[in-house]
Amino acid sequence: MLALTILGNNSAIPAFDRNPTAQVLQTQEESFLIDCGEGTQMQLSKYKIKRSKINHIFISHLHGDHYFGLIGILTSMSLLNRTQDLHLHAPPELEQLITLQLNFAATHLCFNLHFHPLQKEGLIVDGNKMTVECFKVKHRIDCWGFLFREKKKPRKLDAERAKIYEIPAAFYDNLQMGEDYVTKKGTIVPNEEVTTAASKGKSYAYCADTIFDESLAEKVKGVDLLYHETTYLKDLHERAAARFHSTTVQAGTIAKKGEVNRLLIGHFSSKYEILDEFLQETKEVFENTELAIQGSCYII
Amino acid sequence: MLALTILGNNSAIPAFDRNPTAQVLQTQEESFLIDCGEGTQMQLSKYKIKRSKINHIFISHLHGDHYFGLIGILTSMSLLNRTQDLHLHAPPELEQLITLQLNFAATHLCFNLHFHPLQKEGLIVDGNKMTVECFKVKHRIDCWGFLFREKKKPRKLDAERAKIYEIPAAFYDNLQMGEDYVTKKGTIVPNEEVTTAASKGKSYAYCADTIFDESLAEKVKGVDLLYHETTYLKDLHERAAARFHSTTVQAGTIAKKGEVNRLLIGHFSSKYEILDEFLQETKEVFENTELAIQGSCYII
Repeated sequence: MLALTILGNNSAIPAFDRNPTAQVLQTQEESFLIDCGEGTQMQLSKYKIKRSKINHIFISHLHGDHYFGLIGILTSMSLLNRTQDLHLHAPPELEQLITLQLNFAATHLCFNLHFHPLQKEGLIVDGNKMTVECFKVKHRIDCWGFLFREKKKPRKLDAERAKIYEIPAAFYDNLQMGEDYVTKKGTIVPNEEVTTAASKGKSYAYCADTIFDESLAEKVKGVDLLYHETTYLKDLHERAAARFHSTTVQAGTIAKKGEVNRLLIGHFSSKYEILDEFLQETKEVFENTELAIQGSCYII
Repeated sequence: MLALTILGNNSAIPAFDRNPTAQVLQTQEESFLIDCGEGTQMQLSKYKIKRSKINHIFISHLHGDHYFGLIGILTSMSLLNRTQDLHLHAPPELEQLITLQLNFAATHLCFNLHFHPLQKEGLIVDGNKMTVECFKVKHRIDCWGFLFREKKKPRKLDAERAKIYEIPAAFYDNLQMGEDYVTKKGTIVPNEEVTTAASKGKSYAYCADTIFDESLAEKVKGVDLLYHETTYLKDLHERAAARFHSTTVQAGTIAKKGEVNRLLIGHFSSKYEILDEFLQETKEVFENTELAIQGSCYII
């Protein structure tokens, strides 16, 4: 299971108590912070999300509404005497900024910050239970999407049946990984005889600021939850294109073509106080859509 | 009259819904933003303070809790199509950071930002109705205090008496500036005969992060309102000194020696949830003390 909490759902200018973009994806073991607009550290406190469980931070691009809150979190973590390592996955230029800001303050972080520049598409985190891949999205400046997947879970062992086949306990781990058992006499016990498939690992794709780009559908194919930006309603598709953003209908189209299970939309322009129309318009294209609401937690 | 609104009253780590340091000093005509911790632009919205009236921003020093919110305000002002010039008075290094952040975002501000590096003590703003001076305070890194003064107001003219003395109307401005009138026959009409003193211009001194430094008393001598940091209660004076901060008693002492009218204390450590003791301890040294409370407006 994964749980996604929205810390900010607005585009560039904070408005109507909507903060700039930030999200946290939580597993049982750890939390992944995705983008980090100004005020994210206050939002983490507000929604009682433990900073100590965040080991990876992902920054999609260097527009301020996606990263101006990062340096505040880093320095606060240090003031709170964090000890465990932190991994930051971000456009390469960000490293210089962080270094300057720490130098000007005559400060150094009391924990190890590992900076991983985003440079090519592919696997960027290979954890015990999760993988994270990055992929390019099309925006006015370099911008990245992220794809989070729970690792394939071990198959469920039917211990009673394994005993009937006299399979030694030392081989149980292999069974759970899907291997067949071969007896001393050379007889094959097919894996399916003694195990059942575990539930599929869940997946979440984050498409931050992006123009409508049909090739994204392939990149997020079949995910359980897709977050896709909808800065504007459908009537403003020209403005959306000019600013490298997307509309409701466009996000719905990506979800439909990508055959995803659910769609979450956000990054709303400060033009809009009421968001109902975003949901209506997107649902016309892709029914299983929800609004990204600040403070709400979406279970995947 | 001046009106000071507290946008953030906490020290380094935001806590208990207390934001990092930011204040806005308002006159009838314009607003001066003093320090700018993370989240300041949201605080401006929350307390309905118009960004468009801010023409000068002052940054005391480059610890993040005093400036991480600046770049967000600048970019939002630009997104909102600000046209009038903005003057930024800050430690010189900040200019490089702002330039980098704008470059990385491939953005330029749509208004003129005039960067005025703080380098020596003295007058930094000489406006129509206000002057601002900066002075050094002692902190772990270069840090500046600011002294805001309403300009001396013109004297009030008693037009009836001026007519009796047959003073031509063309000389009334000179009378209001305090000049005596000399008749054609050479008789002197003393200014006090035809004018009365206007109310004294108000003054506000801001002493941001500073260790206890008695020489400050001279710099803020006789101001109507002094803001002095009190990061810690009096029992932690050793920690305060080690970190170049001040205690309640120390702030009270500066106010007393400086013979100021009122004292406002803030920049409370996140150690403290309840602030009552700050007020009690400071009042024992300087009775006319108030706590800087977020959202409160102090009339000077």
